Amino acid sequence: MDGAPPPASPAGLSAYVAVSQLLGLTLLATTGAWLGRYQGGVAWHSPLQFNVHPLCMVLGMVFLQGDALLVYRVFRHETKRSTKVLHALLHGLALVIALVGIVAVFESHRTKGTPDMYSLHSWCGMAAFVLYLLQWLLGCGFFLLPSASFSLRGRYKPQHVFFGIALFALSIATCLLGITEMLLFNIRDSYSHFVPEGILANTLGMLLLAFGLVVGYVLTRDDWKRPPLAEELALSMDFKTLTEGESPG
Amino acid sequence: MDGAPPPASPAGLSAYVAVSQLLGLTLLATTGAWLGRYQGGVAWHSPLQFNVHPLCMVLGMVFLQGDALLVYRVFRHETKRSTKVLHALLHGLALVIALVGIVAVFESHRTKGTPDMYSLHSWCGMAAFVLYLLQWLLGCGFFLLPSASFSLRGRYKPQHVFFGIALFALSIATCLLGITEMLLFNIRDSYSHFVPEGILANTLGMLLLAFGLVVGYVLTRDDWKRPPLAEELALSMDFKTLTEGESPG
Repeated sequence: MDGAPPPASPAGLSAYVAVSQLLGLTLLATTGAWLGRYQGGVAWHSPLQFNVHPLCMVLGMVFLQGDALLVYRVFRHETKRSTKVLHALLHGLALVIALVGIVAVFESHRTKGTPDMYSLHSWCGMAAFVLYLLQWLLGCGFFLLPSASFSLRGRYKPQHVFFGIALFALSIATCLLGITEMLLFNIRDSYSHFVPEGILANTLGMLLLAFGLVVGYVLTRDDWKRPPLAEELALSMDFKTLTEGESPG
Repeated sequence: MDGAPPPASPAGLSAYVAVSQLLGLTLLATTGAWLGRYQGGVAWHSPLQFNVHPLCMVLGMVFLQGDALLVYRVFRHETKRSTKVLHALLHGLALVIALVGIVAVFESHRTKGTPDMYSLHSWCGMAAFVLYLLQWLLGCGFFLLPSASFSLRGRYKPQHVFFGIALFALSIATCLLGITEMLLFNIRDSYSHFVPEGILANTLGMLLLAFGLVVGYVLTRDDWKRPPLAEELALSMDFKTLTEGESPG
């Protein structure tokens, strides 16, 4: 295998990734259109501060989280180390943007005297954010710091992958709950008359589902998984021999 | 391998399955408690007809759908044919119960003069039900009827598995949307005061998530997948040879 050109990406993968990005940009634009056209826009020190929340959560917890999950499929011929760093950076950026969105909703609630954390949306959202932060910290600890052994990494990796996809799904479900809450608070009486705002926000919900579906499909398709590079294979064999040699039994 | 006793179930699998069933029964009981204690109970020809809807959807689209997905992990040493039939029967039962729940909400809306299909919950729910029915029909067509070839089944199976888990996740997300809608319609003003009904319904939402998480974990863990029985391995080799012989190239 040494010296051979890197294999081409599997057929279909690029098309699915392109569709996911198109859906991602469309859902960001739809969120912006909803907030701009029907909710007065976005601003920090104003009664519009609340609107920072949906924008940040869709951008951070959905679009960037989804793209961070995709990097191992997209940059399949880069070194594992650089792909890993990009994966951690994108998730880190998603976390920072989500944190801004969370601060926005708490500050907006305080200004308006609205109680916090009573709704199912807030319970799901807080669970998603805290677990996402924990997953990121564990991911950095296991895969970026040199302290974790090869075998420990191998045992944790399936859990990291499963919880990564589960948290992405939970984030999307939480956005759908947020859309429903906003509509029932803002256009409760006209929602059932199929007003444009209701249809736009429902469409945003369907776009979120479609984005999740396409990203989930790309991530879980066996033959689209990132193959180890030739030098990684050799290296991992060396590591394994070394590790098993260090701790017999 | 012939004549050897069947291998024991993998360590941990039984415990996870037991937890999933405990969660499933708890979420059914919680749904019953919510409807019975706070929504006046369940009846068909009465203003309580609406309440048939959440009960049927949680029972059909979550509990039974989840259990239908688990049969290949639980009955791992039975013949493939009988496990397959049980899988189809449980999904079929789930579909019938979900249909009753859907008829209940449409009839209840007609009686009360409430418009149909305007909310994000109804869009997600209708998509979930129609796609679930389609998935069931395709599953029966590909895997139960003798007409589909071995290679066609092999190509369709990964799609069937992916969409099965995705539809299960969508069903749970739709239930969360339904809970939020019911709360904002029924206890909009007191919800933010952490009244017992709100906390009970939010807890139901968390139980739904926990059930989905445990079922999803059992389904996606590689080393818990159902191993082919010895006679299936031999049979599938024969079929493959036969199929490849029939259509060269």
